[in-house]
Amino acid sequence: MKHQDILDRALRIVRPTARERKILEATAEKALQIVSELASGLPGIVDVSLEGSAAKDTWIRERMEADVFIHFDPSVPREAMEREVVRIGMEAIRRMGGEPMLMYAEHPYVEGTINNVTIDIVACYRVKPPNWISATDRTPYHTRYVRERMTRELRDQVRLLKKFLLSCEAYGAEIKVRGFSGYLSELLILAHGGFYETVMSASKWRPPIVIDLEVHYGSRDEVVEAFQGQSLIVVDPVDRRRNVAAAVSDTRLAEFILASKLFAQKPSLKFFRAREPRTSLGTLRRLIRKRNILFIEFRVGGRIPPDVLWGELRRTEKGVRKALERLGFQVYRSDSWTNLRDCVISLELDSSTLPSYELRRGPPAYMDNSLDFVLKWVRKGVSGPWLDGFRLYVLSERRETRAEKLLRSEIRMGRVSLAKDLHDKVKKARITTSLNNLPRKLLRDPDFQKHLHRFLQHRPNYL
Amino acid sequence: MKHQDILDRALRIVRPTARERKILEATAEKALQIVSELASGLPGIVDVSLEGSAAKDTWIRERMEADVFIHFDPSVPREAMEREVVRIGMEAIRRMGGEPMLMYAEHPYVEGTINNVTIDIVACYRVKPPNWISATDRTPYHTRYVRERMTRELRDQVRLLKKFLLSCEAYGAEIKVRGFSGYLSELLILAHGGFYETVMSASKWRPPIVIDLEVHYGSRDEVVEAFQGQSLIVVDPVDRRRNVAAAVSDTRLAEFILASKLFAQKPSLKFFRAREPRTSLGTLRRLIRKRNILFIEFRVGGRIPPDVLWGELRRTEKGVRKALERLGFQVYRSDSWTNLRDCVISLELDSSTLPSYELRRGPPAYMDNSLDFVLKWVRKGVSGPWLDGFRLYVLSERRETRAEKLLRSEIRMGRVSLAKDLHDKVKKARITTSLNNLPRKLLRDPDFQKHLHRFLQHRPNYL
Repeated sequence: MKHQDILDRALRIVRPTARERKILEATAEKALQIVSELASGLPGIVDVSLEGSAAKDTWIRERMEADVFIHFDPSVPREAMEREVVRIGMEAIRRMGGEPMLMYAEHPYVEGTINNVTIDIVACYRVKPPNWISATDRTPYHTRYVRERMTRELRDQVRLLKKFLLSCEAYGAEIKVRGFSGYLSELLILAHGGFYETVMSASKWRPPIVIDLEVHYGSRDEVVEAFQGQSLIVVDPVDRRRNVAAAVSDTRLAEFILASKLFAQKPSLKFFRAREPRTSLGTLRRLIRKRNILFIEFRVGGRIPPDVLWGELRRTEKGVRKALERLGFQVYRSDSWTNLRDCVISLELDSSTLPSYELRRGPPAYMDNSLDFVLKWVRKGVSGPWLDGFRLYVLSERRETRAEKLLRSEIRMGRVSLAKDLHDKVKKARITTSLNNLPRKLLRDPDFQKHLHRFLQHRPNYL
Repeated sequence: MKHQDILDRALRIVRPTARERKILEATAEKALQIVSELASGLPGIVDVSLEGSAAKDTWIRERMEADVFIHFDPSVPREAMEREVVRIGMEAIRRMGGEPMLMYAEHPYVEGTINNVTIDIVACYRVKPPNWISATDRTPYHTRYVRERMTRELRDQVRLLKKFLLSCEAYGAEIKVRGFSGYLSELLILAHGGFYETVMSASKWRPPIVIDLEVHYGSRDEVVEAFQGQSLIVVDPVDRRRNVAAAVSDTRLAEFILASKLFAQKPSLKFFRAREPRTSLGTLRRLIRKRNILFIEFRVGGRIPPDVLWGELRRTEKGVRKALERLGFQVYRSDSWTNLRDCVISLELDSSTLPSYELRRGPPAYMDNSLDFVLKWVRKGVSGPWLDGFRLYVLSERRETRAEKLLRSEIRMGRVSLAKDLHDKVKKARITTSLNNLPRKLLRDPDFQKHLHRFLQHRPNYL
């Protein structure tokens, strides 16, 4: 099939249905109205507006969301603004019949789901560029920038790109994903003029990649200089000092590049259909056979905002990984999972045990401390001390060889870098190399099963 | 005990007995006489002389040896000289009732044992320094240099040093050892004035170490510059361009430094008693338990001169070691053994098998060949391909995980660097990780048992 035919079909997948449109419009209008009512007459609030993909009409089927922004005067102190948006947000979601949830990005906001529409009630300051006070102050300018430039066709192109990114699992700026935001997708479409053009371009990308729509800089080199160490640099049209792609991890960027290469070589509808793997405990048991997976399982109490929890999980995962490598294991891969309550860090190792004997490297013979090493090990080593070149070595027996025991003891001795809030939880975590030692409830959780399946098979959806 | 008391006792261990002296003198004289007779009247032969430790009276108890040198005129072609020394040497040893053996260093010589005295019959050219033609031409000058400077006391000091080096297993310039030669030991004593002074100095050595007895160079830096990359530099008094210690390996040098440090800290008679370990097959079986030793066993036909065979064994050992490391094993240590017929290369590994699964690293996603990697592995990998940062990875199952099988197949595919002469032998070698698979005869050989014991325990004698 030619790529144009594929894209025509894909459009039918990504375009919202008429019914969805009606629901979203009605729900967004209702939310806007309620928030406006709650905010009216309050000093310091200067406006309430609809932002995000609903305002730009770039949302995709089955992903209805509406962002309601409350605009504060710069004179309102940060604390007061946060208090107000939480209070109004909670009340508004409740009035609409939803269950409000307190979220946290740079500052708190409130989320709720009504008629399948995710509603976020967010605060920002009404300021003129570049006098930003908070991270969300740019959003109304982003909305205006995109709306002024998007045709109906381009909006469809954005939808194709978002769906494509979703199936490479590279869509979403939240910490859990560290992928492409909606605004970033829109800018890519504006920069290239269409979905196909964006993907063809991305298939040839080599970092650092530079996109400067408004020509804020004199040259590519100037941009690279200004955003050192960043792989994908998309200069924010409304703020020359900001890289819209700053939160995109190299892994997500690479996933997009790879998918683009594959699509360029052979376009297919698969890239617009995020197949979820079908799995079962039996399948998982089969996949895990002969492999060495170490699980760290614990629960977090209270309600940690998702971005915070995910940040801490990722940091802890990294610390554990480093500790295992220091112990002598090869860590093939690691990933984390949470339902915001149960947390599991999974790591695939080359082996679940270390060899019984360990080679210890001493100082060179000519160093002053060489005798200390010799005298320490002469009775304790299984073999040695011996010399190889100038260097002293000894072979000693390990008291403990099991990964789970070694890691537990490293954690106890405070030698593993853990995120502060998870510290006590991880210290008491269940650490095991056997699936059967995980709690039954967790093993039956379809979301955890899906995660574990993907961890064990770990292959892009579109392949 | 004070070090002087120790040394007094050690002297009784190292000094030849009156009986030994008588035997050596008589045997050396006889050899000299027979070689002179055989050489007399032959054109091109200008002298026959006694060289080495017998001529310098620096030999130690239980190590009687006499080097008979046949001096050729520089006009004699190399080939003719080699032919003559082999012919005369063979005949002389036979006439004395010995079994002549053809040896090979830089050029061929003949060895035989008579009355427990090792007799070497060697050729050299009579030349004036520095017009050396062959490596042995310097020897008569070495003998003269040392004889002119050695007192009776210093000769005893040389004996102490030689015995000390023997018990650190650092004595002997042959390829098997790559240690300190007799001449080098004598120069060290001349440089420091005695055994104790030499050892005290060596205990503080840090490479590069420079000794320039005749002040052939203007400064230490000049010597280091002239002999770059060499750890121990002892400028030959009779040839400023030669480092007498060139053949000393870093390992042997380090062993001498370490033993000197230990002796300096606590002098002991242990350093003059090379205890051979008592062992048995039972002891070996106990020592090897839970360890992963890989044996490569083969026989060499014909008579390969020891230095040549040892050179090839060491090179093969190194090639095998590298191949195993490339395969993913950690090689803790390796050593070779031969009785000049049976050869065994032993290697201690972290494990005798590799993990069932293997992490394969692909190219970064943005490279042109990234799709080749993805398409190659998408159906074959157990997990993946996935991205970590820009890099592609895949986890694949290993068909073979056993060290012996993997090494055998690497050797068959010509991927292991082997010494040329051993190539066919190693291809057909027995490769095993079980002691029981070695030939019975070998397992009962006391010299092999001793070697294996030392390999498994690998600790200096004096500790």
